[in-house]
Amino acid sequence: MLDKSHMSRDEGFAALEALLGARLNRSQSDRDLHGRAEGHFALMPPDAVAYPETTAEVAEVVRICAAAGLPVIGWGAGTSLEGHAIAPRGGVCVDFQRMASVVQVQPEEMVAVVQPGITREALNTELRATGLFFPVDPGANASLGGMASTRASGTTAVRYGTMRANVLGLEVVLADGRVIRTGTRAPKSSTGYDLTALFVGAEGTLGLITELTLKLHGQPEAVSAAVCAFADMAGAVDAVIATIQSGIPMARIEFVDRAAAACFNAQSGADWPDAPHLMIEFHGSDAAVAEQAARFGEIAADFGAEGFRWASKAEDRTALWAMRHNAYRAMVAANPGCVPVTTDICVPVSRLAEAVEETAAEIAASGIPGPIVGHVGDGNFHALLLPKEGDKAEWNRAMSLAANMAERALRLGGTVSGEHGIGMGKLKYMQSEHGDAWQVMAAIKAALDPGNVMNPGKLLPGN
Amino acid sequence: MLDKSHMSRDEGFAALEALLGARLNRSQSDRDLHGRAEGHFALMPPDAVAYPETTAEVAEVVRICAAAGLPVIGWGAGTSLEGHAIAPRGGVCVDFQRMASVVQVQPEEMVAVVQPGITREALNTELRATGLFFPVDPGANASLGGMASTRASGTTAVRYGTMRANVLGLEVVLADGRVIRTGTRAPKSSTGYDLTALFVGAEGTLGLITELTLKLHGQPEAVSAAVCAFADMAGAVDAVIATIQSGIPMARIEFVDRAAAACFNAQSGADWPDAPHLMIEFHGSDAAVAEQAARFGEIAADFGAEGFRWASKAEDRTALWAMRHNAYRAMVAANPGCVPVTTDICVPVSRLAEAVEETAAEIAASGIPGPIVGHVGDGNFHALLLPKEGDKAEWNRAMSLAANMAERALRLGGTVSGEHGIGMGKLKYMQSEHGDAWQVMAAIKAALDPGNVMNPGKLLPGN
Repeated sequence: MLDKSHMSRDEGFAALEALLGARLNRSQSDRDLHGRAEGHFALMPPDAVAYPETTAEVAEVVRICAAAGLPVIGWGAGTSLEGHAIAPRGGVCVDFQRMASVVQVQPEEMVAVVQPGITREALNTELRATGLFFPVDPGANASLGGMASTRASGTTAVRYGTMRANVLGLEVVLADGRVIRTGTRAPKSSTGYDLTALFVGAEGTLGLITELTLKLHGQPEAVSAAVCAFADMAGAVDAVIATIQSGIPMARIEFVDRAAAACFNAQSGADWPDAPHLMIEFHGSDAAVAEQAARFGEIAADFGAEGFRWASKAEDRTALWAMRHNAYRAMVAANPGCVPVTTDICVPVSRLAEAVEETAAEIAASGIPGPIVGHVGDGNFHALLLPKEGDKAEWNRAMSLAANMAERALRLGGTVSGEHGIGMGKLKYMQSEHGDAWQVMAAIKAALDPGNVMNPGKLLPGN
Repeated sequence: MLDKSHMSRDEGFAALEALLGARLNRSQSDRDLHGRAEGHFALMPPDAVAYPETTAEVAEVVRICAAAGLPVIGWGAGTSLEGHAIAPRGGVCVDFQRMASVVQVQPEEMVAVVQPGITREALNTELRATGLFFPVDPGANASLGGMASTRASGTTAVRYGTMRANVLGLEVVLADGRVIRTGTRAPKSSTGYDLTALFVGAEGTLGLITELTLKLHGQPEAVSAAVCAFADMAGAVDAVIATIQSGIPMARIEFVDRAAAACFNAQSGADWPDAPHLMIEFHGSDAAVAEQAARFGEIAADFGAEGFRWASKAEDRTALWAMRHNAYRAMVAANPGCVPVTTDICVPVSRLAEAVEETAAEIAASGIPGPIVGHVGDGNFHALLLPKEGDKAEWNRAMSLAANMAERALRLGGTVSGEHGIGMGKLKYMQSEHGDAWQVMAAIKAALDPGNVMNPGKLLPGN
């Protein structure tokens, strides 16, 4: 092992090349690929991209970077929405595409151990024969390491929880190259600080996740999904609230506003009416799913739902949820020449109606396209704001709309990000949401990464 | 405000008396009351007991103690089992009995805000009229602050999760007297480090919880509970595993071994057969509960269950669960002259049979009473080891049995504490379970409490 206590940047890159050979890529094209984020972020390329194959290599990369003063940024599938994985200060992007295997599946324990680079679709393909699945579904085919790092959730969190609830343990490379394990395979534990929960959602600022132990769930015996239309937004949202309060267990319940429905139609050739919609899915035994669907149908009818379309066949459900998963792309495609600005507020479900309605009214008044979709069972919704590219006035109005949404979420007891995370995009709201607790996060960061090696410029104050 | 930067211990006590008047109690009797723990711990009294009434008073107590070098230890209901709240280095015990109110219930948000001193029974009494309840039930009538601090769980965690899943946010007084808020009222959030999860389970070593925002659940439409006997332990445990794998949603599923059943009979006058038992409960709609109970009955019958007794009336269920909740007392009462040593291992459910059977065989061979009960739906079980008081050889054998259980839990992929926590009692197993991750906990502790003011001597290494 090299003496890495006083390394120049050039010595750092040389050491990384000695370690990884061709698996350290410094080409402009690869750097640019890893400097781009979804959304409106400027290109911020790293100085090099590393493709480690083992935890030991990741640890050595981190040690070298720490010694040479090079930032270290993890990269999964590049699908994050807040610029989490771009490199505002250069440094080394650690791309986990060569650490993307299922290490172990233990069906009788309902546990899978995976490497961080595997995507959720690849994992579920491997699990298919076991009768189990990993339920967290943020829409994009994200990597599990990235999903853990952003505390992702998505359409199924209303039933199965977010990554917070579905990661049992982690292997993490710390900023000094030490490798630790957090958590166990047992369903619960009370042995000290919940480090698993600390690293889930830390956005790579405290260490790099090199292995995840995941909780699996049984594939439901029966699944039934439907979409239905409402005369107005209030009817749809109130139907959600009533359904939740009735205790009907839903696997998914998604709101799609009129503008978003139009984008879905344009993208997929569907013929949804020009109205707000709810998409819903139930998981359970045949009898339970039938009962739940019937009860939901009655509640929704009370709020004016019409045109129910049930998708009991797997291929119909796949087509239905593909529309929802492609929402971002459909909205961007329907608004050529616009810059997508994502929003992601989450409020108590009882405040959802006012949050959505105030937001929709303000967007309508702004003249900027802003279709709304939401994981409304969790009180979480997104307006995709689409100001015209190069139109400074529209950009500023979009920023005001986003800021007002954040302020609204906090006023209603909620949060400025339900699932996308902070990255660089939502840094400006952290002080308002957390106050002094943000300084506590900074103290933890300073304790575990005093050199600010891990993903600097994200999540934390003055960073 | 006094200048507290260089305070002697005596000046510290004087400042506390000036702040709290008679609500600072230095009498030997009150100190002794707060120096005692359930189980085998020696009396370790604090130097004084403080009874604050507001968060501001708690913050000032902490600031004074920090300046005077006095440890600060939180006290809820005194029901913890690992010596969490005793004072090995003296200092000030902060008893939250005057901060035990429900601050707010928002039924439509399914959220309650409470002070830390309220007990779970008092909270549920206040919630009764709302149709909601707080489900976490560790058996003892613990305080919510204590339950959060030990990451408590108990009989209902198999359905509703542990404190980890049911605390949405906290107000915390830090070691320097700053007051922070963590979390929001929204069902989920991705805005930075999960400080709520960090303080839940921190056992008061990072700060004192002064307010909790809790997730409530709807009181189920129908509840059905039962107890049944098995010919042997293997049948009972295998029935649990099969039930879980079938996906039947259980609200509680508890194992009671033959020796524990005998203690229940002696304590409550019941007439359970001399056999291992399962106690089970279902929550849901009438139809769902009926279906679940029928399916469980079939599975249990396949594993030899006999003598089903169903308790559909509320008073019968209360009597049934009172037996389970009084298990500790029943076992101690049935073994006069013995010292209770609690154990609390938790393993993947698939390894439960081997964990329970090895443990039971070893206890039987030891000659020491060790009745076993367990929250087996979570893979968590307890043997209460009862060596004779003053019998050094039995004490040593009990310590070996406990150490072997811990080693067994780790070997099977589990944890040395499913729900009781570490306190002083399980410190000796932390290095084995966590390795270097224990040092990460220590780094976080040092960052947030550099003076080691908060509950020293618990949970952390070299402390």
